[in-house]
Amino acid sequence: MQALILAGGSGTRFWPLSRRSLPKQFLVLEGDRSLLQATLDRQRPLVEPADVWVSTTAALASEVRRQLPEVPAAQVLAEPVGRNTAAAIGWALRSMPEAVRSGVVAVLPADHRVADGAAFRATLERAARVVERDDRVMTLGVTPDRAETGYGYLELAEELDAETGLRRVERFTEKPDLATARRFVDSAETLWNAGIFVFRGTTLLAHLARLEPAIGDGLEEIAAAPERTAELYARLPAISIDFAVMERLDGLATLPLDCGWSDLGSWAALAEVLPRDAAGNAARGDVQAIDSADNLLWADAGHVSVLGVSGLVVVRTGDAVVVVPRERAQDVKRLVEELAAGGREELV
Amino acid sequence: MQALILAGGSGTRFWPLSRRSLPKQFLVLEGDRSLLQATLDRQRPLVEPADVWVSTTAALASEVRRQLPEVPAAQVLAEPVGRNTAAAIGWALRSMPEAVRSGVVAVLPADHRVADGAAFRATLERAARVVERDDRVMTLGVTPDRAETGYGYLELAEELDAETGLRRVERFTEKPDLATARRFVDSAETLWNAGIFVFRGTTLLAHLARLEPAIGDGLEEIAAAPERTAELYARLPAISIDFAVMERLDGLATLPLDCGWSDLGSWAALAEVLPRDAAGNAARGDVQAIDSADNLLWADAGHVSVLGVSGLVVVRTGDAVVVVPRERAQDVKRLVEELAAGGREELV
Repeated sequence: MQALILAGGSGTRFWPLSRRSLPKQFLVLEGDRSLLQATLDRQRPLVEPADVWVSTTAALASEVRRQLPEVPAAQVLAEPVGRNTAAAIGWALRSMPEAVRSGVVAVLPADHRVADGAAFRATLERAARVVERDDRVMTLGVTPDRAETGYGYLELAEELDAETGLRRVERFTEKPDLATARRFVDSAETLWNAGIFVFRGTTLLAHLARLEPAIGDGLEEIAAAPERTAELYARLPAISIDFAVMERLDGLATLPLDCGWSDLGSWAALAEVLPRDAAGNAARGDVQAIDSADNLLWADAGHVSVLGVSGLVVVRTGDAVVVVPRERAQDVKRLVEELAAGGREELV
Repeated sequence: MQALILAGGSGTRFWPLSRRSLPKQFLVLEGDRSLLQATLDRQRPLVEPADVWVSTTAALASEVRRQLPEVPAAQVLAEPVGRNTAAAIGWALRSMPEAVRSGVVAVLPADHRVADGAAFRATLERAARVVERDDRVMTLGVTPDRAETGYGYLELAEELDAETGLRRVERFTEKPDLATARRFVDSAETLWNAGIFVFRGTTLLAHLARLEPAIGDGLEEIAAAPERTAELYARLPAISIDFAVMERLDGLATLPLDCGWSDLGSWAALAEVLPRDAAGNAARGDVQAIDSADNLLWADAGHVSVLGVSGLVVVRTGDAVVVVPRERAQDVKRLVEELAAGGREELV
């Protein structure tokens, strides 16, 4: 099995720790390994670094290679420009040798958290066996533990295989309203879409060529004239693999994944998974809290003191500080957008 | 008239901007002059720097001289150790030449704010004329504009002089409860004790020798054996001039001072007097606020961003950040105490 890690993301929700040049996948949010490095570590020994491919952008490729020296440099693929996941996955698969892409490939986001790596690998291995046997396209779905409205959901159809518990996916529903999310979770007939896919590379490329011929044709043009990659790649439609392929497949199958997964979508999501003291404060670095509860206090450089505050995210880096209530942590991106609009390039 | 500026304070309420080596009087909180420098500026042309004396501690004297190059260096008096205001004022007066201390001296705290310098000087000049004429000890009292429980109050007795509106002070009341403070303000028969005194130096020394002979005798010993100052000064009782003299004088007189005075007792008090934007945020330095109201946002170094917060004090220096609700700003000292107890000398 090969692993294709998608590490081209550019989110701003962990600002000011994350920057354009150092997006979330490169951050060390727990322990001493970045999310990208943890993604690599998590596959071992099921997939060793020699069989890992990374899709990223030209701007981020050198940091990927620096963080993952075990991965062959030629297998770190730098998109000339970001064209979303359908093009990124298609190009990565088309870049693999024929013998490699005809085997099983797992697509893995570089910026998620998994608490139980063994459970993760076990499910991935079961999915790989289904793909080897049935040549299906599979998506792993996370068993939801709350009515989260920020995620995509997989609505399940009939069981395909009693032995493995394999289910067909009926429908994708992105960011439902709260009532729908509650119904989904109560029904036990939905899973969160975690963006983790398993398939034969050649099979996925065939679906992509059939469902999005502009991408399929473009990838063949690039393969025929690699010196024109920059020009041709920029012309590929920028659409997600969910929209381009997964939501349109009749036979998409899934296995439930129960491994303590989080997409770490914001500082607040990180606060949920970090260890907390008796007052509910999660802390990193040189921080001090008096009469304060349920805060995320993060000193990447220097010292942070709080007194009499609760439910806040306070993050300090060498050059910036952000203070935001946990329930509004996802709006940190608005601060970054405003700084970018104001020409504050050194801060974004 | 001579001015004696008391600049030996060591408060921690403006931490992390203020430090042991840089207490509040040295901070530039408005404009481009420190509170100490503004105290000097405010007296001019009524008192020129050649007639200014500064009482400070040995640790702070070099910063006083650096900030006030106009004041003769010999008139910056460094207490060997801090022994509170009775000893500090007494020693400064005793250090003045006889001809100087027999004239009018105004004692001025170095860390207060005055919005209307002309009004301040006019009242000071009226007080000086009273002292010249009657040889009274005077304290200037600020007309209260709210029922502040953190201040000391001067309860007024009979009018001493119809022409100047001079009143005798009946009683000092320190930090009254809220009901008492409200009664004081409603009565219009009280003033805030601002720690601003005017008297003949020789007269004050005579009162001090009579009321606190340990200080009076100690000062004479120092004058007789200046080489033993460090040893003798350390033995002086550490009591305030209010307690040692002012509260015990039968004939203490006052004039009301109406000049936009604030003692700037905390970050919250500063927030009250700084200009604010339409949302009520007072800002200094490189700060950004979205959906936020009524905050004091202070970036002494680096950048500060807030989103969705209100009523906070957020201060960033080169090495530290503090976040505290405005109504708890006075408790910043607890953070400093805890840091000091933990041996964090570099931060306090």
